[in-house]
Amino acid sequence: MAYAIVREPIHTEELIQAVTHPDAGAINVFVGTVREMTKGKKTLYLEYAAYEQMAEKKLAQIGEEIQQKHKDARVAIHHRIGHLDISDIAVVIAVSTPHRDDAFTACRYAIERIKEIVPIWKKEIWEDGESWIGDQKEIVAYPAGKPEIGGGQVD
Amino acid sequence: MAYAIVREPIHTEELIQAVTHPDAGAINVFVGTVREMTKGKKTLYLEYAAYEQMAEKKLAQIGEEIQQKHKDARVAIHHRIGHLDISDIAVVIAVSTPHRDDAFTACRYAIERIKEIVPIWKKEIWEDGESWIGDQKEIVAYPAGKPEIGGGQVD
Repeated sequence: MAYAIVREPIHTEELIQAVTHPDAGAINVFVGTVREMTKGKKTLYLEYAAYEQMAEKKLAQIGEEIQQKHKDARVAIHHRIGHLDISDIAVVIAVSTPHRDDAFTACRYAIERIKEIVPIWKKEIWEDGESWIGDQKEIVAYPAGKPEIGGGQVD
Repeated sequence: MAYAIVREPIHTEELIQAVTHPDAGAINVFVGTVREMTKGKKTLYLEYAAYEQMAEKKLAQIGEEIQQKHKDARVAIHHRIGHLDISDIAVVIAVSTPHRDDAFTACRYAIERIKEIVPIWKKEIWEDGESWIGDQKEIVAYPAGKPEIGGGQVD
């Protein structure tokens, strides 16, 4: 699966393999990992949740958007959900293109779009509490906890 | 070894592992692969050569340059030499930083610097001939073949 929401560890080399092609000279890969410190607060672990079917459709949409701009691009994106410990991989994006400029541009585009349109959210668990973080751009808060279907976090 | 010239296949996940850290939330990885078609000409395979000891020093220098600009960055770079077939990985750069903007910027910087200052060159073998390509930016030609030590291809 080029675009998947997964519950097991993501193997970056599988995504690289999926976009490797004789026409490709460059592969850019973004790996998002769980960082321990955020704004001076120590995270113990994260819980990611998603509207899975919609999230996979949105990941595929991002791949199509990239291929409209970079016609030779190949794209694979996996996002993990569930319990993630510090340094665990949450997301991997791999984009191959003939030349490197397009690979960098498209991969950067993908991670920004994921945060804009893919219905994935996370709960940060600290030593002294926990909080659902709103949309992935962290613009929308969810003071009541987990967002409701139909809430404002996706386009 | 964070910075290495190698003769065996490069395993991207080893480099990602080398830069993974609790302070890192983003890892950007550049993978350079052997492309079949270049300017309408079909490559059969490549031969990379290097002044190995100098090349490893220059890779380490690039890592230091990155850490001067992005103090929390961790960097690993492996470049393969010898015979490489189509789609084989020639170079992998992995850069981790707390936030993604720095990871993308630093990884892009690294590949440009590799092409500027690291004494690695390649021979392209086509169906009807072969040619040593000059410096990695392909600005300097080597009409006589392999460059001489002291030649102009490195700074």
